[in-house]
Amino acid sequence: MKKFAIILSGCGVYDGSEIHETVLTMLAIDQSKASYQIFAPDIDHTHVVNHLTGEEMKETRNVLTESARIARGNALPLSDLKVKDFNALIFPGVFLAAKNLSTYAFEGKTFKVNPQVEKVVREAIENKTLIGALCISPVILARIIENVRLTIGNDPATNENLKEMGVETVDTTHGEIVVDEKNKVYSTPCYMLESSISQIADGANNLIKKMMNDLND
Amino acid sequence: MKKFAIILSGCGVYDGSEIHETVLTMLAIDQSKASYQIFAPDIDHTHVVNHLTGEEMKETRNVLTESARIARGNALPLSDLKVKDFNALIFPGVFLAAKNLSTYAFEGKTFKVNPQVEKVVREAIENKTLIGALCISPVILARIIENVRLTIGNDPATNENLKEMGVETVDTTHGEIVVDEKNKVYSTPCYMLESSISQIADGANNLIKKMMNDLND
Repeated sequence: MKKFAIILSGCGVYDGSEIHETVLTMLAIDQSKASYQIFAPDIDHTHVVNHLTGEEMKETRNVLTESARIARGNALPLSDLKVKDFNALIFPGVFLAAKNLSTYAFEGKTFKVNPQVEKVVREAIENKTLIGALCISPVILARIIENVRLTIGNDPATNENLKEMGVETVDTTHGEIVVDEKNKVYSTPCYMLESSISQIADGANNLIKKMMNDLND
Repeated sequence: MKKFAIILSGCGVYDGSEIHETVLTMLAIDQSKASYQIFAPDIDHTHVVNHLTGEEMKETRNVLTESARIARGNALPLSDLKVKDFNALIFPGVFLAAKNLSTYAFEGKTFKVNPQVEKVVREAIENKTLIGALCISPVILARIIENVRLTIGNDPATNENLKEMGVETVDTTHGEIVVDEKNKVYSTPCYMLESSISQIADGANNLIKKMMNDLND
């Protein structure tokens, strides 16, 4: 049975992992007769956002604890992730590029990536472990993997930032998958495009199907 | 286009709405070419649970604000729900019977239902608006609708409580739907049974398909 590690950054699009993309990725993996384990860094949220108003809340929440909501309790610290035990890593998306996993949302092109995230991505590249990324989360990979090829849909500002970083971006529409054959990176735009929840399911299904095909080759 | 009102109680199985059941209900409705709007009571959580440890947290969270995480911001106060504008109401499940929507988890058989929830359910019954309930949430309906027929899977203790309340419970397994034709109540067990996420998708799909068939009759 193929094993996926899903790396989360909380629970909610505006300050953590996008919930629909995460749940529909879990479903796609389970429907492909593969298994998954959820991981998240055991750190404080960069900030907490009221999802009704969009305003910042004066609260502190823990990324691992909040990620456990989507995982029904079964979430592990990212520091426990042994990449060699998995066939693939998956990063669901989050508003403005993986708050909690990187600083892109706050610092733009000069952003930094969480060191635990950088470590597992580098191990995945070394081990030829597949890496999947939905929505804006390919931006994280752009900082770590030189000249990576990926999609973030067709957002001009993000594309411009990525091109300046030497990334080959490919414009895509709903449900399309871009594969970087050299680095084994699979990406799909999901909510980087104005989407229905069915289109998010299509993106997640197509991503996992393509990764499973390549794993079974 | 048929319109569903989804009534949430927060964001997370142990203190609010079960996230997988909610997202997969939203997906099933969208894939049926119907539309949905999310509602939740604008009240404080009964309590907040750390989903990693199961322990209570010394925090206050608002049910509507947290529900907005699953809704990507598009959640309305339950007090704004005009039942006559919708073809159906849906209650996704939650651990131990709809904390925040009722007191069943804390008071057992003598539990009380949130007055706003009771009001919209009574209006639905009067208007012949369909009512769908996943997992443990049929228990809420048992308090409001006399001699209702429903399923909560096959949990002996809950079945016993419901029978004492005059409810006709039907044991079910994964993906099965029980229909109360008189009251137009549709229920399915979902996570009341030990389930994979694919089995939750089956339950949500079968529930919405059955309700859509009856709406289109």
